[in-house]
Amino acid sequence: MINVSIMGATGYAGVELVRLLLTHPQVKLSHLSSVSFEGKPISEIYPALHGICDELLTGEEGLYEDTDVLFTSLPAGLSEPVAKKCAEKGILLIDLGADFRLTDPASYEKWYGRAYSEPALHEKAAYCIPELHGQRLKTAKIIGNPGCYPTSIALAIAPALTGGLIKAQGIVIDSKSGVTGAGRGLTQTSHFPDCNEAFSPYKVASHRHTPEIEQTLSELAGSSLTVTFVPHLLPLNRGILSTLYTELTAPQQLPELVEKWKAFYADKPFVRVLAAGETANLRNVKYSNYCDISLHLDARAGRLILVSAIDNMVKGAAGQAIQNMNIAMGLPETEGLMMVPPAF
Amino acid sequence: MINVSIMGATGYAGVELVRLLLTHPQVKLSHLSSVSFEGKPISEIYPALHGICDELLTGEEGLYEDTDVLFTSLPAGLSEPVAKKCAEKGILLIDLGADFRLTDPASYEKWYGRAYSEPALHEKAAYCIPELHGQRLKTAKIIGNPGCYPTSIALAIAPALTGGLIKAQGIVIDSKSGVTGAGRGLTQTSHFPDCNEAFSPYKVASHRHTPEIEQTLSELAGSSLTVTFVPHLLPLNRGILSTLYTELTAPQQLPELVEKWKAFYADKPFVRVLAAGETANLRNVKYSNYCDISLHLDARAGRLILVSAIDNMVKGAAGQAIQNMNIAMGLPETEGLMMVPPAF
Amino acid sequence: MINVSIMGATGYAGVELVRLLLTHPQVKLSHLSSVSFEGKPISEIYPALHGICDELLTGEEGLYEDTDVLFTSLPAGLSEPVAKKCAEKGILLIDLGADFRLTDPASYEKWYGRAYSEPALHEKAAYCIPELHGQRLKTAKIIGNPGCYPTSIALAIAPALTGGLIKAQGIVIDSKSGVTGAGRGLTQTSHFPDCNEAFSPYKVASHRHTPEIEQTLSELAGSSLTVTFVPHLLPLNRGILSTLYTELTAPQQLPELVEKWKAFYADKPFVRVLAAGETANLRNVKYSNYCDISLHLDARAGRLILVSAIDNMVKGAAGQAIQNMNIAMGLPETEGLMMVPPAF
Amino acid sequence: MINVSIMGATGYAGVELVRLLLTHPQVKLSHLSSVSFEGKPISEIYPALHGICDELLTGEEGLYEDTDVLFTSLPAGLSEPVAKKCAEKGILLIDLGADFRLTDPASYEKWYGRAYSEPALHEKAAYCIPELHGQRLKTAKIIGNPGCYPTSIALAIAPALTGGLIKAQGIVIDSKSGVTGAGRGLTQTSHFPDCNEAFSPYKVASHRHTPEIEQTLSELAGSSLTVTFVPHLLPLNRGILSTLYTELTAPQQLPELVEKWKAFYADKPFVRVLAAGETANLRNVKYSNYCDISLHLDARAGRLILVSAIDNMVKGAAGQAIQNMNIAMGLPETEGLMMVPPAF
Repeated sequence: MINVSIMGATGYAGVELVRLLLTHPQVKLSHLSSVSFEGKPISEIYPALHGICDELLTGEEGLYEDTDVLFTSLPAGLSEPVAKKCAEKGILLIDLGADFRLTDPASYEKWYGRAYSEPALHEKAAYCIPELHGQRLKTAKIIGNPGCYPTSIALAIAPALTGGLIKAQGIVIDSKSGVTGAGRGLTQTSHFPDCNEAFSPYKVASHRHTPEIEQTLSELAGSSLTVTFVPHLLPLNRGILSTLYTELTAPQQLPELVEKWKAFYADKPFVRVLAAGETANLRNVKYSNYCDISLHLDARAGRLILVSAIDNMVKGAAGQAIQNMNIAMGLPETEGLMMVPPAF
Repeated sequence: MINVSIMGATGYAGVELVRLLLTHPQVKLSHLSSVSFEGKPISEIYPALHGICDELLTGEEGLYEDTDVLFTSLPAGLSEPVAKKCAEKGILLIDLGADFRLTDPASYEKWYGRAYSEPALHEKAAYCIPELHGQRLKTAKIIGNPGCYPTSIALAIAPALTGGLIKAQGIVIDSKSGVTGAGRGLTQTSHFPDCNEAFSPYKVASHRHTPEIEQTLSELAGSSLTVTFVPHLLPLNRGILSTLYTELTAPQQLPELVEKWKAFYADKPFVRVLAAGETANLRNVKYSNYCDISLHLDARAGRLILVSAIDNMVKGAAGQAIQNMNIAMGLPETEGLMMVPPAF
Repeated sequence: MINVSIMGATGYAGVELVRLLLTHPQVKLSHLSSVSFEGKPISEIYPALHGICDELLTGEEGLYEDTDVLFTSLPAGLSEPVAKKCAEKGILLIDLGADFRLTDPASYEKWYGRAYSEPALHEKAAYCIPELHGQRLKTAKIIGNPGCYPTSIALAIAPALTGGLIKAQGIVIDSKSGVTGAGRGLTQTSHFPDCNEAFSPYKVASHRHTPEIEQTLSELAGSSLTVTFVPHLLPLNRGILSTLYTELTAPQQLPELVEKWKAFYADKPFVRVLAAGETANLRNVKYSNYCDISLHLDARAGRLILVSAIDNMVKGAAGQAIQNMNIAMGLPETEGLMMVPPAF
Repeated sequence: MINVSIMGATGYAGVELVRLLLTHPQVKLSHLSSVSFEGKPISEIYPALHGICDELLTGEEGLYEDTDVLFTSLPAGLSEPVAKKCAEKGILLIDLGADFRLTDPASYEKWYGRAYSEPALHEKAAYCIPELHGQRLKTAKIIGNPGCYPTSIALAIAPALTGGLIKAQGIVIDSKSGVTGAGRGLTQTSHFPDCNEAFSPYKVASHRHTPEIEQTLSELAGSSLTVTFVPHLLPLNRGILSTLYTELTAPQQLPELVEKWKAFYADKPFVRVLAAGETANLRNVKYSNYCDISLHLDARAGRLILVSAIDNMVKGAAGQAIQNMNIAMGLPETEGLMMVPPAF
């Protein structure tokens, strides 16, 4: 059994980690830490866990004992000092925040308003979408778990970029996220009468996930590229659907493209490439670790349109973090993650 | 491994059975039958199952071979002939419909407009909410799986009636159900613009679950009683919350009552009696087999108010059917059913 | 033209008053006051008003000038001092808060935790549901505008109590409200992921509207009565639906009862008594000042079940306040209030 | 008073026309026609109208008498024969369907699968978004009322195309519509459990509104252009939000662009151009005839991003049709249409 602790256990990603790890056959939950609710049982904050996990929330003290793997889900800047301690103690750190996602320190400073406090640590860190960067997990001691939007985008477009099927420049990404993406904190934006029966983009062409998206897509394309990325807020709890508009470098037939995507993800259990004519829908991936991808041609405009759907809290956060842990710890990639998405 | 088949696999209860049984460690899915979609893969009807269960839907032919347990989820009247065949072949039948719920043939005829076609069969049948009638599963060959409303109501009130704490007459039950309770069939009532941002009771004091509720509550009370039952339609997918208004026979203190409910369900893993001051909420039981119950005193009116919350598709249908199967087949009651309800 | 000012204009009831008064043909909006947003245009807080009403929000200073009618929508205790000033200046005050609803000072103190600071003022005040207490508006200088729950309840049950058709004791009221009822302030309860796809009662048998309900129903019955009142939170924006369970004093036929209700409200333009067999639904009253009432018999239990539906922000707050103003100022009752509820 | 009749009065656009026309000060509703519900009162189909409009639904007979203006909201192909009769009788026809939107007969045949049956009639017809084509209303006898998606798109982009600010080719339009856009007919797509907590594009790059969009945008640009258009289905009742991705022909500053849009719509009462930094949101236009437009620069990619929000049933259908009628009949453009959008 692997001893796992969580720092930031009462945030939305944190409690989703708790939920999924409670049924992971190889994991024992060691410490659940929360600065906001120290001393209280987690089931008091989330009554869904009542009688299932009534563990008391702790502070940082003692957190590193009986811990093989530590998940952090913290605001930007708070994970670096924790990572330093983990490195000293030989604990695998999987950070669901933003501190270990960007390889370019200047980019981090530009988008997050602070410089890395522990630049040397970042050499031991690896940003990892397991379907694309799984090999990095063999040596990494610190794993930068990807953001929800970048995951949905990179998985959809990877075969196109690595295959040179589309132009690297001019990509437009229109993404839509459920309200849990905004987290547990109370804001006007997530006040029910404000977002129910409402819909709007936000942070148009200025969202912090932009550099992460461009980093991954540039790597895949083999050259530096810039994207236009606009996220929107959906009046539902869970899920991210991204619609990607790309320009084909040469005319293509849809069935052949679908086959290429299927081949690309042939041995990847959590990516489902839909048949030509089908369309990805948030409904079909909820509460699961799947990423559904559908392909569509706009022959009149010479475009390939890609649609991907994930559960932002599972494949977009906690599920993918566990998938990363599984691979890094030598477990089957799917261990504890084979949830069947409900039909409704 | 137990070979399990499902008749009516593309109805909402049917596909929920499929979803839950796919991860049941002791079950092998044998046949999935659907008159509406025979010959198609079930994942074409429910794309959430894509790549997970692409089994072809069958007709009745061959259904009874390689089948130890058959679940039926069919309109009233269609399960009786199936039950007859199961009885002949030694197959355990668990019927999620209404054909084996009412012990009084006259009551069935009154509320469903037809008489039992196989009256003798009903002697081998047992209606079973496992927390209340688990012992019946030792001998039953046909199990009448309870309705969603009756489950939420009986579990909340059982300790009150068996303990003589409340008057048996005059009970008022105000229940609220999500739209999946109306099933997969298209109706004006379940048309999105008709039920979104809407709320209304339906079948006021005339719902078919009324005789089933009264049968169970009368047994618990030891005398025949009549209830007032009004269901309402909630603009959400899953869940039933019932608010029960009862009159105390003598003054009570809330903490003592909570203790009585906790004692009553001490060894029942799926009933969670909440602490005094807490309130049951649909949010906390979604996608799980739990029934949450909270107790409230209205001292000014001498009333005990009981609130229960279940997922109508799990504890109210497919989950409870599997729980019944587990007990009947000698498996641990919780096998395949320990889903942790998500916090959101 | 009547000069109207609003104190608390950025609360939900306040901004709904603004919306409705903007199209009232006899009203000129004079001052909009808000302690939270003084100096800002109201359209910055509520962009729906952009270009329609960009009036700057003010403090209390100058509020009483150019004001014939003042609406207050303030927390308990804050309206009394304002009412004193209005009385001195001859301004009609219509208070949407709780300060002028309860005639019994002891009841106010018990449920709101403070005593009246201006007891003499209350002799000039009248609590007024216009369909039931319209005559009080002829002399009142201070109008206590009713709460949303009490309005939905009193209108449904008034013909039964005044007609002696039901027992005054033992009434059970199960009400359900949309989230706007909780107001603009951010709370965990109104955080989207907490209330979307969720449902629960709250303040079971302890809601502050209980004494107001009992005051009105006791007056109608001609004797002091106690009710059991349980409110629930619906995952939708607008509306209150109340289901009332009463005991008939003698057997009745439904068509005759419906006729009695229709006769009772014959000259009341905003009450719609539905035909026997129809059921009140929140959908049909949204964004309007109507109260729909349906009647249902539970002959088996000797009960009359009443269902009423209103828009909590219109008939339950701002619309009813304007209706009170219209009558008090000698205008047609319906002036500015004939909004047709949308079909969806 | 203008005598107005409606053909297709029980479709969603039809009943929305009824709702809006009931409070139009210059209109008398003459005939409401519905093939599906002939002989029934419209309030039986839409109980929201109970007591407000209980008019009996008629067939076509008598429809053209006492009718100055006829609105048709019918499936493709059914409006042409009606238009012929109107032309003979001197009745102004406003068609909310697709029969009079496309000026190119070949385009109509390609996208709708049938040829015009009355080609000569189309010379008397004018497609009209009133803010862009108002002058056409002076002579037109048949008005092709625009589709919901094209309205939201053309209004957002018109100043850019007429001003030569953006490249005419390569425009990407990502639109999102509420479920009422699918109409009253029951479909799996609009079944509550299928679309609640779900989100997906549909008819990707193949929606029938595409030629209408290209017709209008080509006219504005002065040259034939092709767009990429992808509609999505939102889990809410009302509204269309379109996000348009365009390429600037030269660098621009956002404040100057906003001023250009404001100038373009200076005398257009229903278009609200938001200030730089604000973002259009469906919430702010619901139940109103407004179109909100916000502008956003993606300087890194040289793009201008436009966002527009309308109520699909009002500005996208019935409201715009009445606006067209007002202008054509010489009434003030805003008559009967100054609904203030509610804040929630």
